[in-house]
Amino acid sequence: MKNVYIVGVGLIGGSIAKDIKHLNPDITLFGIDKNEAHLNQALDLGIIDNKATLNDIVNAHIVIVSIPVDASVNVLPQILDLVSDDTLVMESGSTKLDICKAVENHPKRRNFMATHPIAGTEFSGPSAAIQGLFKGKTNIICEVEKTAFKLQEMALAIFNIMGMRIRYMNPESHDKHIAYVSHLSHISSFMLGKTVMEKEKNERDIFDMAGSGFASTVRLAKSSPDMWTPIFKQNKTNIIETLDEYINNLERFKTCLETNAFEDVYKEMNDINHIKDILNGIE
Amino acid sequence: MKNVYIVGVGLIGGSIAKDIKHLNPDITLFGIDKNEAHLNQALDLGIIDNKATLNDIVNAHIVIVSIPVDASVNVLPQILDLVSDDTLVMESGSTKLDICKAVENHPKRRNFMATHPIAGTEFSGPSAAIQGLFKGKTNIICEVEKTAFKLQEMALAIFNIMGMRIRYMNPESHDKHIAYVSHLSHISSFMLGKTVMEKEKNERDIFDMAGSGFASTVRLAKSSPDMWTPIFKQNKTNIIETLDEYINNLERFKTCLETNAFEDVYKEMNDINHIKDILNGIE
Repeated sequence: MKNVYIVGVGLIGGSIAKDIKHLNPDITLFGIDKNEAHLNQALDLGIIDNKATLNDIVNAHIVIVSIPVDASVNVLPQILDLVSDDTLVMESGSTKLDICKAVENHPKRRNFMATHPIAGTEFSGPSAAIQGLFKGKTNIICEVEKTAFKLQEMALAIFNIMGMRIRYMNPESHDKHIAYVSHLSHISSFMLGKTVMEKEKNERDIFDMAGSGFASTVRLAKSSPDMWTPIFKQNKTNIIETLDEYINNLERFKTCLETNAFEDVYKEMNDINHIKDILNGIE
Repeated sequence: MKNVYIVGVGLIGGSIAKDIKHLNPDITLFGIDKNEAHLNQALDLGIIDNKATLNDIVNAHIVIVSIPVDASVNVLPQILDLVSDDTLVMESGSTKLDICKAVENHPKRRNFMATHPIAGTEFSGPSAAIQGLFKGKTNIICEVEKTAFKLQEMALAIFNIMGMRIRYMNPESHDKHIAYVSHLSHISSFMLGKTVMEKEKNERDIFDMAGSGFASTVRLAKSSPDMWTPIFKQNKTNIIETLDEYINNLERFKTCLETNAFEDVYKEMNDINHIKDILNGIE
């Protein structure tokens, strides 16, 4: 019987816990969270079997870390200090470079695997955890060669039963590309929400006019600032590049409108429509 | 038995037709569309009972116009020329000012009602039509006082059985506010799709990294250029204003990242999170 420690019992950690428990009921799940209310909630919801603290991690067979990425950078070396030689430590944040750097010279680096399971919702906390969240989703593993072979096998077996497909990438590439396909979407959504709320702050009725299109586009503006501020901080160089390109594209589109270049507006939208084919299978 | 003519048998016209037929099977539905393939498809799908042409509209009790807004401006006066004194003519485009102006001095202005049922998907054409699409959704009616009282009653009875809630607004206000809660979302989504596709055009694999968040934010980039180019054209003044504010907000956010003002980044996102409360009930 294995002891699995979930550090951070929120949306991601809680959903991983639910999958692991569902797929392997023999496992005992321990939860660690600096938010005591979340920890109690996770216990009440049956997401974890027991509450624990960081020092208990000496007893762990597997440790899964799903906390804000700035906290991971601090906590991962402490966790590696504590674990046994056979313990697998995985982390699932949305940035990879700073996290891999934080452990690169740790004597237990081979116990660690950097992952990014690409799944989630705009909600957070243990009540947002969903069994099956990761089924059919992509999991990006960085620097796989730096993880001990037996622990790689153990991790892949877990991802396999969770139904995830694996992609391998170095941390630099991960952070660069994820800025485009994830981090930029969050900023575009937050700023859309801000623009509309600023304009309409005295006219709440106006939101009666909002349809499902607006709701979809602004959905990510509900995301947790605790989770996202450190992501933006760690990946700021890549994100600034994406923002520059996004703003340039918006400026160019605005110029088309201002100069009545509606043939260009049409052509632009028609070209971008090809995203239909690219997105097939993501939703 | 009433004759209802659907001019434009696409997503909106087709969905209205399905609702009307479902809720009142005695009605005979005639379809008019310049796209012959769509018209045949609508017939095959049972969305309409018969094909028709514009001149047949002399026999209509009700005419529902759901075509691109530039076409509406041209076609609505011709339709009003043809209809009897008791015929209700409704139009459902996403702009209202130019359309109301196009008929303001028409001798049959009182036969016309300008509406905007706020519902839809990113798909188009008769195969995209959905029964029940409008249930619980908002319908904005402009210049209601300019429609004959009896025809107002007829229109409201239809919207009532379709399950829509009604809001009254003047065309200027409609176009100003809808630029924020709908038109801007479409542009932010198209430009997000463009930015990511440009960057990743040689690395299609990268889209494996895209999750449901990206898919949601970029969903509207699948929308029809035929429908949206004329909307952007007719409402360009309001849309340029929303784009200026959106771009300013993005620039300010970028400056926060560049200057490491991450407390401001946090506060900004935390404030925008209130959109949760505002959006409740839209999705």
